[in-house]
Order: sequence, then structure tokens, then C-alpha cells
Amino acid sequence: MLLSKLFIPITKDLPAEAKIKSHQLMLRTGLIRQASAGIYSWLPLGFKVMKKIEKIVREEQNIIGAQEMLMPTVQSADIWKESGRYDDYGEEMLRISDRQKREMLYGPTNEEQITEIFRTSVKSYKLLPQILYHIQWKFRDELRPRFGVMRCREFYMKDAYSFDLSEDDAVLSYNKMFFAYLKTFERLGLKSIPMKADTGPIGGDLSHEFIILAETGESKIYTDKRIFDIPINNYKNENNSLNQMRNDFSKFYSVTDEKFDPNDFNKKVKKNDQLQTKGIEVGHIFYFGDKYSKPMNCSVDGKDGKKIFVKMGSYGIGVSRLVAAIIEAKFNNDKMKWPKAVSPFDVVIIPAINKNDNSNIEKSSKIYSLLKEKGIDVLLDDVEENISNKFKKHDLLGIPYQIVVGSKSTKDQFEFKEVGKDPQVFEINKIINILKK
Amino acid sequence: MLLSKLFIPITKDLPAEAKIKSHQLMLRTGLIRQASAGIYSWLPLGFKVMKKIEKIVREEQNIIGAQEMLMPTVQSADIWKESGRYDDYGEEMLRISDRQKREMLYGPTNEEQITEIFRTSVKSYKLLPQILYHIQWKFRDELRPRFGVMRCREFYMKDAYSFDLSEDDAVLSYNKMFFAYLKTFERLGLKSIPMKADTGPIGGDLSHEFIILAETGESKIYTDKRIFDIPINNYKNENNSLNQMRNDFSKFYSVTDEKFDPNDFNKKVKKNDQLQTKGIEVGHIFYFGDKYSKPMNCSVDGKDGKKIFVKMGSYGIGVSRLVAAIIEAKFNNDKMKWPKAVSPFDVVIIPAINKNDNSNIEKSSKIYSLLKEKGIDVLLDDVEENISNKFKKHDLLGIPYQIVVGSKSTKDQFEFKEVGKDPQVFEINKIINILKK
Repeated sequence: MLLSKLFIPITKDLPAEAKIKSHQLMLRTGLIRQASAGIYSWLPLGFKVMKKIEKIVREEQNIIGAQEMLMPTVQSADIWKESGRYDDYGEEMLRISDRQKREMLYGPTNEEQITEIFRTSVKSYKLLPQILYHIQWKFRDELRPRFGVMRCREFYMKDAYSFDLSEDDAVLSYNKMFFAYLKTFERLGLKSIPMKADTGPIGGDLSHEFIILAETGESKIYTDKRIFDIPINNYKNENNSLNQMRNDFSKFYSVTDEKFDPNDFNKKVKKNDQLQTKGIEVGHIFYFGDKYSKPMNCSVDGKDGKKIFVKMGSYGIGVSRLVAAIIEAKFNNDKMKWPKAVSPFDVVIIPAINKNDNSNIEKSSKIYSLLKEKGIDVLLDDVEENISNKFKKHDLLGIPYQIVVGSKSTKDQFEFKEVGKDPQVFEINKIINILKK
Repeated sequence: MLLSKLFIPITKDLPAEAKIKSHQLMLRTGLIRQASAGIYSWLPLGFKVMKKIEKIVREEQNIIGAQEMLMPTVQSADIWKESGRYDDYGEEMLRISDRQKREMLYGPTNEEQITEIFRTSVKSYKLLPQILYHIQWKFRDELRPRFGVMRCREFYMKDAYSFDLSEDDAVLSYNKMFFAYLKTFERLGLKSIPMKADTGPIGGDLSHEFIILAETGESKIYTDKRIFDIPINNYKNENNSLNQMRNDFSKFYSVTDEKFDPNDFNKKVKKNDQLQTKGIEVGHIFYFGDKYSKPMNCSVDGKDGKKIFVKMGSYGIGVSRLVAAIIEAKFNNDKMKWPKAVSPFDVVIIPAINKNDNSNIEKSSKIYSLLKEKGIDVLLDDVEENISNKFKKHDLLGIPYQIVVGSKSTKDQFEFKEVGKDPQVFEINKIINILKK
């Protein structure tokens, strides 16, 4: 892509309400634009990052055998009355009356809707276990939407739902999802900690939040550093290994400030291993048994012919929120560096453009074509602007690799830089090999 | 995927309102499930087909240089008041009042929203031309939603918007989109005809509908058969070639019944070339100049410093509707055959399962693993059911290729069938080659 053609309106004047780094950066680099309070449009660059996150989330869901589907955004109020949550949910639920005066709502979550689908679809224990998920827009009518897409009203979420015959089976589904979440966040370049959590309005008796480290996070966290040394990729997607994983994680102290007790912390964690920092919740998983299946009469015939209410869990990842969370975790000293896996481009070519001398831009075009041929997603900064302004702009755009075509480049050798490291001069083939890794 | 694990609830009892083939088939094969009037959930199989359609639509948009973004589903009423359409739109617009009593709406289309983004983002002629698009859920509160996802309330649409300096430039953008649409429908395995159309509530003075042939379609069409011989892939994405394409298409008589005149038809089209049939609208493109940019004050500074209202067009493809439209076009004699490009699976393995003899299912499992290794998306029908029921089921599921593992298969040779053709007996490597083509 040529930067001159990319629709990336860079805003210099920040609105007063943009108080946190991710919100500021997303506006300044044209990732998003506010449509109305707590509602955003995703411009091409932000859209691209979000789609890359979505793809990784999807792949890890598929690996554990979850099946993707898609429920609508607008739901009937009837099913929420059946579960008893229609009145409980309060003003955060966006209630809608259609032209026939039917009570509808913009779904804030989908426990009721998936339970309704399941109860009319599955009659026999033979079809269990099942995990179904979708990645769909949700709406929560926050009283005070803020922090950009971090706490907005219309947001993009992956929510999965598991259906099992027994509590033991349901714990296996829960553990699979726990595993998938750890792998997802690792692939996104994030350090995540699963923490025992309260279940809140979803209900149930087993729940974990997944928090990623970011000094600007909303949640204070207290943890044993050694939790990061647990080798996630050594576990396997089968019962014993997943139980082992849950045990291994439970050995390390790790709580948010709600549950923090300094005496306990000092007793259980050696001074050297103590980590006090902040974090952002990016995932939340719940096991709630028959909380929905019972009032909504979602049962299957068991082996003995008796009706069994299915045991359910639900599992959320905030896909749109993750874009902001990654920025909060990775933005440092006024510089952004996207993790390779979700960067809007693999590499940017930055030519020094001199008046009356096209040689740098011509060299750059050649490299650009070559990289594209090799399947590398490359941005060429062909904007006429002085090189120091360009560097400032790319400090914010955060593409992790730069090829600088200027005084240090010769016919075959170019200045190549991984953001945050010293530049080096390499032949183009070496650069391609690094980018393809 | 094993059929026994796939969430594909097959409904035998059809609701009375399912009157057309695609609606019936989509319910019977578990592609969709109604959530409420005119609102559907997409179950795994239907979701997969829709995603494949979406991918092809996206690729062809990207090829002509359109940039993908994503606007929210919920819009502020303010911008619709600016354009003057807030009152015009009537009851089809789903109006929403949020907790602060602000007037919002669930977007039925996005001309206002994209114009608002553009006017605050682009100030100079240098950034034109631009084509932006998104693929997002829309809502139209139909008085009588019917025909399943063909005329539903919540639907998935690709809508693109072009921005140009002059009418000539705008026609080039229009022609690019015209070209992309023809290529999109061709890749989806459909015969499409572009037809001059009225502009309706979008407005403007140039418009084409893209209609695909289906005997059950809503629109009667009268056309010169030779329009299908125009070799779409001979045109190129540049001005002269695209003008030629528009000329070539305009040579052939082609109208819906609104504009049909039998005398004209007989005069302009030889008897042998006359085709009278029915069709389904799957795309619609519009050029409307400054209809939105003027009232919404969306202008750029021209070369001479004077303000120019940008010239706009909009371009829709009904992605969710296409799933049904493809069924209407391809369902024949109670049998479905998905076009290869959008089939939920590349091939299905159908073993004859005999009591006390596992050999067919074992053979099938081996083929299954081998095909998966080769990157082929294969379904194994491991359900215990007699073979004639299986065939009936697969007549409806419509996966275009079948490998039947039964009496005619030997150690290395299997019955291989393309739906609608005679079965043949092939070695597995030959089968793999055919599937990979």
C-alpha cells in the first residue's frame, strides 16, 4: 500500500475526553473515529489490526473444537424474560421497540439466545459436548462511555458457550477454553494472567478473568512473577494435561485489589517474586451449570431416558477492546510498536525524499514490488515530507520494522531497523528472510 | 469435520411461512434458525457459506483499490436530519432512543455516516479519488419480513462509497465497481445481468441493478441471451477498457418488467436470442453526485483553492441474501449443489456402515486424514444410518463431490461422484487432484 493512497486521516488536535494513551493514539493515527458517544467507526488501519486479532481468536477457538456460528444483534425480549434477566439488566441494556411495538433489545451478551437455539436443536445426550461461539457486535448502554474503545457502547466480542451432560464434563470444556485463552493472548504478544474472579451478572460459581499487564490498566494486580514462567505450550488439549495446567496456575498468588491482602501476599510470595502492577481485563470465563438451562427448560434425554438440564459455561474475549489494550501494553516513551502478529503492516519503507532527486523513491518502489511479490504486507511512505517528520509519524504508527532508503543505503544495501533496536545495514535478501520469519 | 460432531440441527417439520425453496432448504439443512420475525441466527454450516461469499466479495473490492473499514450499526439521528432523509425513510428505519433519550437508529444504509467521516477527514483534492467500503449488519424494519434471509430485517451487506472530484472521475469509480460486481458474481458461480435501474430512495441519476437468474426470482426479466457471452475477464481495471465494457453491455436489451415493452423487445432482439425468465437482485450501484455532499457540506479544496463538493456513488451487495439467492439459482429437482467456491465443504465421504463390520468406516477415516493433510476441507458422514437415508440427506446438503465407500470400493479405488454426474471409480490420488483443481 502507498501511504499517499491509504485512508488514514491523522488528527493532530485531540479532543479533551481522550485521556488515556490508547484513545489518544487511536485518534491520532486514524485507527478509529468517533461516530457518537461511545460508538466508533473503524478506519482502514484500525480495522486491519482488529481483523488480525479476530483471526487469532478464531483459530484458537477452532483448535479446541468450538464451532463458529453467528447470532443476530437484535434479540427478542421474550427469552430474557424467561431467564429472568430482562428486569435485572437495568439501563445498560439498549431496549428497542419495533414498528409492531414488539419489545426487542440490542444484545449485550447471548446466554439466552444460544440456550434458545440449543433447546430446540438438541434432544439427545449423544450430541454433547458442544462448544459454539460467535464474534459479533454487542451493545451496552454505558452511562459514561469513556477511554475510546476500551469502555464504549457498541463493541466487538467473541462469546462462546459450552454445553455438557455433567459438571465433570463441563469443567473439561472450561479448561479447554482456559487453555485457548492463554494461547490466544500469547500469540497476540501479550502477557496474560488468569485470575479467580467474581461471576457478577452472568452468575455461576466458577470464573476467571484474564488480565494483561499494562501500567495504565484499570485493575491493580498483585502476583507472583513466576506465573509467567509456566510453559503454556507444554500442555495438551486433553483432560489430564488441562487439569495439570489449572493446578500449576493455582499455585501462584495472583489477585486484583478487590481480593488483595498484604499479609497473605507477603506470606505466600517471596519479596523477589512479588509483582505489583496494573492490568486490563481482556477475557472472562464462567461456569454456571444450569442457571439458564433450568428456567429456559433446555434439557436432553440422558442414556437412561431421563431429562438432564445441560450444564453450561460462557466465555468472552473483547476483540475491539484488545486493540486498545495492546496499545496500552506496548506504547512506551511516546513510541508504539505493534506485535508482529497484529501489526497493520509487516514493514514500512521510508525513503528520504529530496527535491530534484528521485533516486530514493525509485529504489523504494523497487523494494516495495519485490517485498509484495514475496507476500510481505508492505507500506511505502511516498508522502512528500521531510524525513524527521516521517520518523515522528512512524513512531506513532508502530509498524515493527522499517527500511530507510537514504544516505546510508547503497545499491543493494539498506538501513533496516526493528523499532526499539539499533539500525543495521543489510542486503535485501537478508531483510526478506527476517520479515518472513 | 465429523458429521456426528457438527452442530447441524436438521429440521424435518417446516413452518408454514417457509414458502420458497431457499427458505425451506436453509431450515431443513440447519443453515439458519429464526430468532424472531425476520431475524435469523446463522448456524455453523450457513455461517461457513456466508463467510466464503464475504471473502470473495472482499477480494474483488480490494482488487479495484477499495479500502475496507467498519462503521457501527447504531447511528445518530443527527446526520440523517442533515441529509434530509430522517423523515423520508419512514417506518422501515428502526429508531432507537438511548438511556439519555438521544435519537439513534440502527443503520439501514450508510451514505450519511460515510459522508460525515469523509468531510472531517479529507480537506484536499490530493487525497481523491477514494473508495471505502464495509461489510456490516444492517436493519430494515420490513412490515412483512418473508422468504427467510431473502427479505429479512437484520441482514449482512457490503456497501461501498466512492468520492471523486469530477463527474468523469466518478464514472470511472462507478465502472470499476460495475466490473468488480460482474467478477464477484462470476466467482460465486452465478450468471448475473446488470440492468439500468431506478434510483429509489438513494437518489441520483445513474444506477444499475445486478440480477442473477433464478426461476423462482421475484423480478421478471427480459433479455438478449448474448449478454452472457460477453467475456468479462477480457476487460481491465482501467478507464478505456471499462468504458468499452459499459458500451458492450449496453448493446444488449435487458430490462425488468417495470420497463418491459414487448414491441421494443421483438424489434431489438431476434426470437432465438430472446430470454424471458426470472431473477433475484443481489447488487445495486448508484451514482448520485452531490446529493449528500452538498447538504452535509462535504467539500475539498480544489487545485485552484476553490471548494468542490465531492461527487459520490454507493454500491451494495447483499451478502446474507446471496446465500439464499445461490440456493434459488442452483437447487434443482429437489437436489442442491453448491458452487465449489462457496460450498460448506469441498467433499463428503459417505461410508456404507454395516453392523459388525467396521471396514468401510475405517477406510473412510484413512481417506479423511489423507484429504485433511492435503488441505482439503472434508466432511465425514460417520452417522449410523442406512445408506439410502444418507444419500437423501446429502442431496439436500449439496456438497458438490462425494466419495462413497461401499461395495464398489476396493483397497485403493473409491466411488467418486460429482453431484449431477455419473459416479466413477478412481484411485485416491486422482480424486485429490480433482478436488485440488
